Amino acid sequence: MKTALLGYGVVGSGVHTLTKAQPEHGVTIARMLVRRDIEAIRAIATRDFNEIVSDPSIETVVEVMGGEEPALSYVKAALRAKKNVVTANKLMLSLHYAELISLARENGAHLAFSAAVGGGIPWLTNLLRVARVDSVESLGGIMNGTTNFILTAMQQGGADFAETLAEAQRLGYAEADPTADIDGLDVRAKLALSCDAAFSQMADAAAVPALGIRHITAADVALFRQLGLTCRLIGKAERTEAGVAAYVEPTLFAADAPEAGVNGTGNVISFRCTGLGAQSFFGLGAGQSPTASAVMQDLIDTSAGTTAFDLARCNGAFIPDASSARHAYYLRTAAALPVGLAVRPLGKTPAGNACITKPLPVSALHALVQDCLAVGGSAFAAGLA
Amino acid sequence: MKTALLGYGVVGSGVHTLTKAQPEHGVTIARMLVRRDIEAIRAIATRDFNEIVSDPSIETVVEVMGGEEPALSYVKAALRAKKNVVTANKLMLSLHYAELISLARENGAHLAFSAAVGGGIPWLTNLLRVARVDSVESLGGIMNGTTNFILTAMQQGGADFAETLAEAQRLGYAEADPTADIDGLDVRAKLALSCDAAFSQMADAAAVPALGIRHITAADVALFRQLGLTCRLIGKAERTEAGVAAYVEPTLFAADAPEAGVNGTGNVISFRCTGLGAQSFFGLGAGQSPTASAVMQDLIDTSAGTTAFDLARCNGAFIPDASSARHAYYLRTAAALPVGLAVRPLGKTPAGNACITKPLPVSALHALVQDCLAVGGSAFAAGLA
Repeated sequence: MKTALLGYGVVGSGVHTLTKAQPEHGVTIARMLVRRDIEAIRAIATRDFNEIVSDPSIETVVEVMGGEEPALSYVKAALRAKKNVVTANKLMLSLHYAELISLARENGAHLAFSAAVGGGIPWLTNLLRVARVDSVESLGGIMNGTTNFILTAMQQGGADFAETLAEAQRLGYAEADPTADIDGLDVRAKLALSCDAAFSQMADAAAVPALGIRHITAADVALFRQLGLTCRLIGKAERTEAGVAAYVEPTLFAADAPEAGVNGTGNVISFRCTGLGAQSFFGLGAGQSPTASAVMQDLIDTSAGTTAFDLARCNGAFIPDASSARHAYYLRTAAALPVGLAVRPLGKTPAGNACITKPLPVSALHALVQDCLAVGGSAFAAGLA
Repeated sequence: MKTALLGYGVVGSGVHTLTKAQPEHGVTIARMLVRRDIEAIRAIATRDFNEIVSDPSIETVVEVMGGEEPALSYVKAALRAKKNVVTANKLMLSLHYAELISLARENGAHLAFSAAVGGGIPWLTNLLRVARVDSVESLGGIMNGTTNFILTAMQQGGADFAETLAEAQRLGYAEADPTADIDGLDVRAKLALSCDAAFSQMADAAAVPALGIRHITAADVALFRQLGLTCRLIGKAERTEAGVAAYVEPTLFAADAPEAGVNGTGNVISFRCTGLGAQSFFGLGAGQSPTASAVMQDLIDTSAGTTAFDLARCNGAFIPDASSARHAYYLRTAAALPVGLAVRPLGKTPAGNACITKPLPVSALHALVQDCLAVGGSAFAAGLA
């Protein structure tokens, strides 16, 4: 299968290496869209996407550039030219999912994106498969390796957030602009894609409330340790009486919960079904090898003419409801809290008073944190699992 | 796809219910081989397998009778008649794997068996897929729900083995003849099937050393608790310098290991690959819904003309080597031990002295336990993870 690669960064070069090392799969990288001049790939490189999209011998395009544009324009043009697309770009997918799924269908092309959620963990493919025979009641877990690395390092080393983020950037685990990771927007996109696989309906990603870890302090982490709890950034979606609740927020787990044992850049993602019960998938959520491996799986399936993503239904988008899910929270803020909210004070920290709240709707707590940030300068909250 | 069901027990009736509830998959149970007269299915029931195998309209046969015969004869006859076979029968498969894979291939039929390992956990399908792009270095975990139920109950309730086994039988978690489960033979069969998926070579199941949990006592479990360890029955296979080591044995895990957190009839099975790193799959390893669900997945894939099991290669069988893997053991026996074997005495129990041994090859320890049983009447050993 003659294939073009858009992007030759960490993942792109990993995919190139894999296809060369495994000729038995018959996937050949015949063209590459790259900006730089790299001697080793000069013979097949181009800076002009038109050379790729207008080449009828190219059956499949692998998009591993990331970002919304120009990736989106290239992917749409490739699908319109009836080329299959394999992508790891969860941001682009979460923003333009319905359009891309429709375009693929109209043009009889495959659109596969195993690597978009969970890195090398076969999460979406298995979720799509289970949803064809069972009813998914809830799903979620640790879906972002960068924030899990930061939270693990803060827990083990006692350092503060800014310092730990800088260390993660130095090690290549966090990007120069860490916003998407630390504010939970990356998890939000992955959660939205998981909702379509599970519920046949896309969550409107922009409407999923997301609390990140930007405001966590070493004092918060020290309090969690005293309580015997471990903080992890979680994406969660669950069927409720009101529809589907979906949200992203830091969550505190007891030491024996599987999430508490997932350290560094590890991910664990779970679903609960009516018939099958709960299943969990553990593994490395990011990195060159896992991501390139997931892209390679999609390429092999695409080449064979069938992928689990052909099951994606995308019966429209829904606005997730975050008022029907509720739990108690750890809340630390310098702002004054409404009377009766705190049920267990945890004392003063340098950045405000900490407490455990009474059970609150997710939407109410997220709004409260935004209010506290607006007036108090700092606030951090984490749900109690 | 017109399908015949061989066996109408817990799993068979679950499969029948699923196919009726999900007509969108186009799988119709058109005939059933049953011994009893059951009014609800009388119209399609038969006691004569020839009526099924000679019916050209039947494309696929689901074998959920269990046991070696007559299941094996029926499956072979179905494959020879170019009918696809879906089975959950790990005993039959592990004993006759190469022959059945060959028969399926020669006759252009699919042979799928998701439910044979891990119940509803998509273990074999994902293992077969990962092995096509990565090199599996090791695999294993908790693969038997019955023994995990017993070990969990002994740990939580403090009762002795015989009493706990009887309770498991009363609850339907253990069979009247529990030998295959408690002596590790069920895990051995599942391990052998996993070896073919991972290493493209079948382990000769009869040659896999297996220590079970038949001789565990409440005093052993009390000592594990004092040490902060949790006992689980594990099947494991790993590449070593000498080839592939494979064995089944009780293993002691620290409280924060994932295996220690898997209770009741839960399973957790993991692999480690060169590129992808480690991945783990958690879920219910047995029961009507998970097993019927796994069979249904195979039926849908078979109907679509492609299953992950088409990747099974079975390049012959290998005799697993259990001398190149070694670790320290908990060992409790009434027999005298070789001088220098015990490195940490753990005191007297009603059924002999307990100790931690120096690191020993798996094969040597298993032979030692057999010797102890022969002379001392009781012995129990568990590897230190």
